[in-house]
This record gives sequence, C-alpha cells and structure tokens, in this order.
Amino acid sequence: MHEIGFIRDLAVVMLVAGATTILFQRLRQPVLLGYILAGVLIGPHTPGMLVDDPRAIDDISNLGVVLLMFTLGLEFSVRKLREVGIGVLAVAVGEVGLMLWIGVGIGGLLGWKGMDALFLGAIISLSSTMVATRTLAEGGQRHQPFAQLVVGLLVAEDLLAIVMLTLLTAVAIGGSVQAEAAFTLIGHLGLFVVVGMILGLLLLPRLVDYVAGFDRDETLLVSVLGICFGASLLAVWMGFSVALGAFLAGAVVAESRSVGRVLKLVEPLRDMFAALFFVAIGLKIDPAMLLQYIVPALLIAAVVIVGKTLACSVGIFVVGHDARTSLRSGLGMAQIGEFSFVIATLGLSLGVISDFIYPIAVAVSVVCMAASPYLNRSADGLANGLRRATPRSLRLLATSYSGWLENLKPVNENAAIAAIFRRLLWHIAINVLLVVTLFVMGAYVNAHSWGWFSTLGIGRDLRHTLIWASALFLSLPMLIAVYRKAEALGMLLAEIGIRERFAGSYTWAIRNVLARTIPLATLLVLALLVSALGSAILPPRGIALSLLVVGVVLAVVLWRGLVKMHARLQAALKETLNKPGPSADGSD
Amino acid sequence: MHEIGFIRDLAVVMLVAGATTILFQRLRQPVLLGYILAGVLIGPHTPGMLVDDPRAIDDISNLGVVLLMFTLGLEFSVRKLREVGIGVLAVAVGEVGLMLWIGVGIGGLLGWKGMDALFLGAIISLSSTMVATRTLAEGGQRHQPFAQLVVGLLVAEDLLAIVMLTLLTAVAIGGSVQAEAAFTLIGHLGLFVVVGMILGLLLLPRLVDYVAGFDRDETLLVSVLGICFGASLLAVWMGFSVALGAFLAGAVVAESRSVGRVLKLVEPLRDMFAALFFVAIGLKIDPAMLLQYIVPALLIAAVVIVGKTLACSVGIFVVGHDARTSLRSGLGMAQIGEFSFVIATLGLSLGVISDFIYPIAVAVSVVCMAASPYLNRSADGLANGLRRATPRSLRLLATSYSGWLENLKPVNENAAIAAIFRRLLWHIAINVLLVVTLFVMGAYVNAHSWGWFSTLGIGRDLRHTLIWASALFLSLPMLIAVYRKAEALGMLLAEIGIRERFAGSYTWAIRNVLARTIPLATLLVLALLVSALGSAILPPRGIALSLLVVGVVLAVVLWRGLVKMHARLQAALKETLNKPGPSADGSD
Repeated sequence: MHEIGFIRDLAVVMLVAGATTILFQRLRQPVLLGYILAGVLIGPHTPGMLVDDPRAIDDISNLGVVLLMFTLGLEFSVRKLREVGIGVLAVAVGEVGLMLWIGVGIGGLLGWKGMDALFLGAIISLSSTMVATRTLAEGGQRHQPFAQLVVGLLVAEDLLAIVMLTLLTAVAIGGSVQAEAAFTLIGHLGLFVVVGMILGLLLLPRLVDYVAGFDRDETLLVSVLGICFGASLLAVWMGFSVALGAFLAGAVVAESRSVGRVLKLVEPLRDMFAALFFVAIGLKIDPAMLLQYIVPALLIAAVVIVGKTLACSVGIFVVGHDARTSLRSGLGMAQIGEFSFVIATLGLSLGVISDFIYPIAVAVSVVCMAASPYLNRSADGLANGLRRATPRSLRLLATSYSGWLENLKPVNENAAIAAIFRRLLWHIAINVLLVVTLFVMGAYVNAHSWGWFSTLGIGRDLRHTLIWASALFLSLPMLIAVYRKAEALGMLLAEIGIRERFAGSYTWAIRNVLARTIPLATLLVLALLVSALGSAILPPRGIALSLLVVGVVLAVVLWRGLVKMHARLQAALKETLNKPGPSADGSD
Repeated sequence: MHEIGFIRDLAVVMLVAGATTILFQRLRQPVLLGYILAGVLIGPHTPGMLVDDPRAIDDISNLGVVLLMFTLGLEFSVRKLREVGIGVLAVAVGEVGLMLWIGVGIGGLLGWKGMDALFLGAIISLSSTMVATRTLAEGGQRHQPFAQLVVGLLVAEDLLAIVMLTLLTAVAIGGSVQAEAAFTLIGHLGLFVVVGMILGLLLLPRLVDYVAGFDRDETLLVSVLGICFGASLLAVWMGFSVALGAFLAGAVVAESRSVGRVLKLVEPLRDMFAALFFVAIGLKIDPAMLLQYIVPALLIAAVVIVGKTLACSVGIFVVGHDARTSLRSGLGMAQIGEFSFVIATLGLSLGVISDFIYPIAVAVSVVCMAASPYLNRSADGLANGLRRATPRSLRLLATSYSGWLENLKPVNENAAIAAIFRRLLWHIAINVLLVVTLFVMGAYVNAHSWGWFSTLGIGRDLRHTLIWASALFLSLPMLIAVYRKAEALGMLLAEIGIRERFAGSYTWAIRNVLARTIPLATLLVLALLVSALGSAILPPRGIALSLLVVGVVLAVVLWRGLVKMHARLQAALKETLNKPGPSADGSD
C-alpha cells in the first residue's frame, strides 16, 4: 500500500512510546521524561532517524494540547476552585509572579533580548499538573493533606496559565508590553470567560446529561468532543487560544452529572495524544543544540527547583499550615511541564523568540521531571534536617504565628454572616459583569453591522437608539437583581454594623436609613455605569433620557415578572452548580 | 495562534460529528449514515464549504481503519472462531463468493472495465460489522439465537476480508488475476498469519498481562497501542496491509486476561476515529457525481439487500436452523459498510479503479445503512408472510430436512472421539505448518544474505549445509511432535476402526499393525516433505544424506528432551488460549 508515510511515522512513534512507557514504569521514572527522550532518539537529528516527517506528527500532537486542556477543565470544576480557598489562590498568584520575574531577570542577566526573557519567565513560572499529580499518585500520597494543597495550587495555576497564554499572544503580536492594552485584553478575556461559563453552564451540562441518557458511550464521547472542539473554535474565532476554549468546555461539562463517565471516555484519548505530544517534543530537539546550551539550562533548572520550592513552601506556611506540610507542598510543585512546551511552541509559531529557547525549555523540564520523584521521596528527610538546623527561637516564632492565624479565623455566627456577605457580593459582581457584557456586545454590533442596518433603511441615530434600548432592556433583569441584592446587603450591614448595645433606642431608625442608603447608592452607581457603557453608542441626549425614563417605568411595571425571570435563570445556574453529582468528584 | 488550519478543520469535523450523533440517535437512525451525510454537507463540493484541507482529515481518518481493525481483532479471538462452527464458516465463504461473483457480473453488464468490476464485487461482498452489531444492539436483540449467528458470520467475514484485501492489493499491483500468483500469495498470507499468531500468542498476552499489573490505564493503553501499530508496521514491511497487522494484533491481545480492560480503553479511540473516518468519507463525495450515478447505485443496493439476505438465509437454513432464525440472520447481514470503503480507498490509492466507483460504493452503503433498521424491524412480519405464502408441501419438506440434519449429529461417545480426532489433526497441521515456515525462512535467508555470508568466508556449499542443518535442527521438536500425534492417531483409528465383533481374536494384532503403520507412513511423508522443502537450498547430496542421518540420530538421542521442550511450548500456547478470562468474553 502506498501513501502510508503518515501512518508509518505515527506507528513508529506509538511503538516507541509503548516500549518507553513499559520501560520507564518498570524503572519507576516519570513516563513523560521517557517520551521526550524517546522522541529525541528517533528524531530527525539523530543517526538512524526513523521518522520521515516530524511536521505531520507535530500537527496531530497539537490535538494533545486540546485534549489535555479539556481534561484539566473536566477535573477543574467551579466547585473545586471554591474549595481551594483564597489563601492558596494568593500563594499561587504570588509564586507564579515571582517565578515570572526571576525568569525575566535571568534572561536579562544572560543578555537575551526582551521577548526571549519574557517567554523564559512564562516558561518557568507554571508547574506541571501532569508531572505533579503523577508523582503524588506514584507515591501513594493522593489523599494526604499536602497533596490537597498541591492540587489546589495546580488548579489556581491552570487559571493563571490561561491568562498568561492570552497575554503572551497579545504581547507577541503587538510587539511590546503596554499596560493599557494588557488591561483591555484581560478585560476581554474575563468577559469571554464569564459570559462563556454562564451561558455554557445554563446549556451544556443539561445537554450532556440528556445525551448520557441514551446510554451509548459512543454518542456521549463524540458529542462531548464536539463541545470541546466547538468551544476551541469559538475561542480562536474570538482571538483567544484553542487551549482556553478546550479548558472552558471542560470546566462547563464538569458540572454535568455524567462527568465521571465523560472523564473515563476522554482519558484514553488524552493519554494517547499526550504520549504523541511528548514524543513530538523530543522529535523537535537537536541533541547538539541541547549540549550547546547545557550550562544555562542546568542553571535555570536549579533556579526552578529551588525557587518554586521556596516560594510555595513559604507561601503555604504564611497562609497557615505547619512547616512539614508546607515543605512537602513546595517540593511537589518544583517542576515545569506541559505549559512550558505550550508557551514555547506559541513563541516559536509566532516567530518572536530565538531558536534556543525551545531546547532550553525542554532541557529544564527534563531535569525537573527526572528530579521530581527524588524530591518527593526526600521530603521527609529534608523536613527533619531543616527542623534540626532551625534555631529554637525561629521555631517558637513559627509556632506562635500558626497559633495567631488560628485565632483570626471567623467562627460560628460570624462565619455564617461572612458567607452570606460573600455570596451577595459575588452575585452583584456577576450581574454587573453580565450588564457590561450586554453593552459591549451592543457596541460590537454598532461597530460591525453598518451595512446590515443601512440596507434596512435605519439611520445612525435610530440605530444607536435601537441598540441602546435593546441592551438596556435585556439588562433590566440583571439591574433589578443587583438592586435587590444591594437591598439585602444593606439590611445585613445594618444588622451587623449597628448593634443594639451601641445605638440604643435609635437602633431601628439608624438601621432603616442604612438599609435604604445602600441600595439607593447602588442605583446611582448603576445609572452611571449604564451611561458610561452607553457612551460608545450614546444616542442624542434627549432620546437617551427618554429611554432611561421608559426603562425605569418598565422596570417598575414589569418588576415582578423580571424578578421571577431572574430567579428562574439563577435557580437553573445554581441547580447545575450544586448538583450532588455522585461521580462529580471523580478527580482521578 | 497561527497555523491552526488542521486543528480548525478537525474541530469543525468533530463539532459536526457531535451534533450529528445526537440528532441521529434522537431520530433512531444509524449514526454512521449521519456521519457520511454530514461529511457531504460540510465537504469541499458543497456551497459554504467549511473544511479547507480534506486531505489532512483523510490522513488521520486512516487511523480509524487501524483502530477499527484492532478492536475487531480484540473482539474476534481464536476462541470465538472455534465457537462459530464449520457450518457458519462455510455459509460465509459461500455467501461472500456469491456476492463477489454477482458484483463482477453486474460490473460486466454495465460495461465497466475488468478491475472496476472486480472491485465492485469485493465492495459488495462484505457486510458491515459496525452497522450490523449496532442494529442488533439498538433493537435489544444481542442475545437472541439469530444474533449469535449474525456475529458468527461477521467474524468469518472479517477473516475473508483480510484475505480479500491482500489478494486485491496483489492483483492491483500485478495488473491481472493469475491463479498461480494468487495461490502463492494466499500461501504467504497464511504463513504470516499462522507464524504471527503463534509467536504473538506465546509472547504478547503475557506482556499485556504484565503491563496490566502496573495498574495504570495510561501505561496499558499506550503499550497496547504500541503493539497494534508495531504489528501494522510489520505487516506493511512484509508487503501486507496495515489492516491485517492491526487485526492480528487485536486477535492476539484478545487472548490476554486483561482484554476487557484493553477493550474499554481502546473503544473511545475507535469511536472518535470511526466518526472521523465516516465524516472523511462524506468529505470525499461530490453530490453532483452521486446524482449522476444514482441509477446504478440504487440497482446495486437492491442487489446487495436481496442477494445478501437470500444467500445468508438459505445458507443458514441449509446448515440446520429454522426458517425464522435463518431469515432474521439474513436480514441482519443485508448491508455493506466499512470494508467497502477500505477496499474502495485501496483501489483509488493504487490508481486501478475509475473515479465513479467510490461515490457508488458510498451511495450503496448509505442506502443499505438507512434500510438496515427497517429491515430488522420488518423481519417478523416478513417471516410470517413467507410462512403463509409457502405451500404446505414445501413446509413439510423443510421440517423433515431439519429433522434429518438433527439425526446426523454425532452423539455421546462418538462426539468425544470426533473431538479428539479433530484435535490431533489440528495439532499435526499446525506443526507441519511450523516446519514449512522454518524452511521457508531458511530459503529466505539463503536468498537474501549473500554478502553477509561471504564476508564470513562461508562458501555456497557450506552456507547451504548450515542453513539446512539449522532449519532441520529447529524443526526437530515439531517433527517429533507430528510423529507422536500420528502414533496417537493410529491408536485411535485402530480402536475405532477395528471393532472386536468383526476381527475376533485377531483384534489386538490388527490394531497393533494399524497403530504402527500410520506413524511410519507419517515419518515417510515427513522425510519427503523435508527433502522437498530443502530442494531450494539443497546441499550436495552426500552432505544432505549425512545430515539426515545426524538428524535422525539426534532425534533418537535427544527424544525425551525434545518432547519435553515441545510439551512446554504447547502448554504455554494452550494456557494462553484456554485461560478462563473473566472478561475475556466481554464481547461488547
């Protein structure tokens, strides 16, 4: 049979991957490391090259990124992010920022150009979910407290990775780092994510559960893959990366009741394409080039291991865990992996980084991956050694710090009030974001649909008015919801803030005033917001004013209907999120 | 991100496949039909084309063939073939041969050139495992007796498909159908299959079970895929098709204890790539061309449905099943599918068939697929109608035929003896095949390693002697086994053939003679065989004779050791085949 070059290459890669996985599993070394080394061995730069056209393999290995991000999304889920807690989130942000800064600094010290240094920073800032979770699984430590922290950090880093991929794309295309552009981009990104998540959460989990009802694995798998690739397409079309779309699709599908089944079906695909992905990385590497840059690579690897361990350990300790747990978590995060390759590939494909960055990224991650099981095994010894080496006074300080943190935590009634408070603020934020989205969409329609309107014989003013009115009308349920949440917030604050023992008999009156002031202030802020949002498409002032009046009148007249509608929407969302999925936590 | 054309195309295909699978599942129509139609819709020949480069999609859709054949192999297993029974096997051969002949005939009637007619015959001769098993599953009839017959026929057809693919490749490359060449090719194929299966069965199930012991799905999956693609590579290297290698790999892995787990892991991959495969078929179709050839396509589809139904029904009835079961089985086989596309693609890629064959194959299979659920549902009505329409005399004849067949079946003691008899013949056949293989390999070494020998300073005569001696030496265990089986056969025949009531007091003596004659005759035949086999590399007669003497002496001296060695090899094979795999029959 002719024309089977591609299948032949793929067959060689899969055969080698199969042999590698058995060998490395037997040697108890990370399999990913084996894939990369095997790729180097059979690559076009080595004598006895076995793969004719690494480009074709590279093409389909990109499927690996999509499926990897999709399963990361499936295992992510909004619920888990809520469980991670604000402290771990802060640690992740701080640690990633620090590593980014260190990376850029090293690039500068080595005399690299700005873009190379920036990409180096990004490459070394993100730990590898695949390596870290495998190391935990292989050590049988999945359910230890420190493992939960590592998983939490990884989940938070997944989010940061998405932000970083988007920013780097924009920066690389724009050619420079402009604060304003970055800010706009993050705004767009946030909007896309929030709107995508909300619309997705309303539709997709239901769809997936419906399809799961057919009880045919094939149907479920193919339709879920359709969702994954569809979301990737949408993300690309909106100017974001494939990875973002796949991740969001995963996070949304994760809220369906059948997520356990979906994960079981998607995992073999991910495993196959992950193997291809890592072998393809090896295929791209010229060992000669690797040797040439061995010194900076080893230096950077040392920085990654030491830097990540320190940053994570200290961070975890500061947010209130004991020294041993902190050190273990830090050692668990001391590596870089799949995101580094995704970022390096991004830089290469955009043509903004030098050729030597990719082999360095590979070398650094190979060293870190190889070290990872040893670091994990040496954690206990290291913790004991550190304990002996620490002066008594420092140990006392550490203990009293932990005790002080323990006292700070809100208890009982206060904790409950804090929870309600957080939820109200959360609701207000999401509703305001939705309103902003509607107006941005209006501005988009205004800017891009000239011809369409003029063929309908609609002039500029009428067009503005129409769009503005539609945006306002569609925002009404959200605006009313914000007002109602603000009322509740006012009452809550009044209840907590004005205690009877201080205000005496005036308590009720003062509370009443406070409870009214807050929603009124909110109303004012909302009016300002709507005008500001409308400024891009603001119709002549008279019409705007009359529309506003009509909006208010409509709001009052339709109040009950709109409240009901919003409640229904919200209930649908909440039901999706709080579903007691039996296998929803199948975090394997 | 740039250069994502391929991922974009793939994403479009997966999105469309996802939507299609839900829609067709909802409409209770065959999903494969939906994939093909969706492919036509988004293809490059339709306005609003969505896929830029169908070639890239086609490339990776070929993975679908490999994975499809691998899972067919996984579900095949030697044990199942044994269960199918000789009757069903004969029906399959007869029915496929008939359809092949009819197809060639139709091609001739339509005035097509010889190769087109031959490929048409091949295309319409093989039923679709995917369509047939799905129709059964959707009708909830998996465990009815007629479903077992359909599955048996499909398993037998899988084997015939392998033979046909190999023959067609050879014929297409050779340009004509020469009986001698075809015979040689079938011989080679048989040799490859038997040797591959025996060596594979000795090594691979053990390897798979060993890897399964790591208890990591990823490792198991990647190494099994390595086996699958490795076997495909080997098959291609030996001049056979990828499909053959993948199928054999599946059939061998099916004998491991972990086959249930392997199937669960491979199925999602197959489902994804099967979806891609069928959409890719649609992508290749130009609706205009389809319309142009609609009349012959409909004609052929009618022939397929009627011909397959009749051939299978009559065949199944003749081997001893009632009329209703026979009709149901026949209707279950009345379609063509994935093999038709594989064969049509083969013809296209070898450039031996006209362009219109492919769209006709697609149109015919689409019609058959669409008809398949209706045929299945109408089976009962049809059977009743047929019953009413049949004259009483014919019904009586049918009943008495069934009764006569029932009486023919061997019972009790005879059945047990027949089973032992079959097993002995089976063992002898396999051992002779192995001996032939060794000598063919010797001839191969002799023909292809000139340089290698001459660098070692080995002349022509010495080389011949060496190769011949090695082949003979390596065959010794097999030859001795054949002799011992022949002894057992002789004793068995003596026991059955010479009954005491006929031979009286001479019974023992006559039995003894018969029991000795058969192994001696076998020994003679073996000697002739070995000389004939050696003729290609026959050393000067004197050396050959002395070698034969040495061989006989060695055989006598080492007899016990060789018997033991052979017993160990055979035990290993048998253990593999008879393992009571708990999920080994996970025939899903």
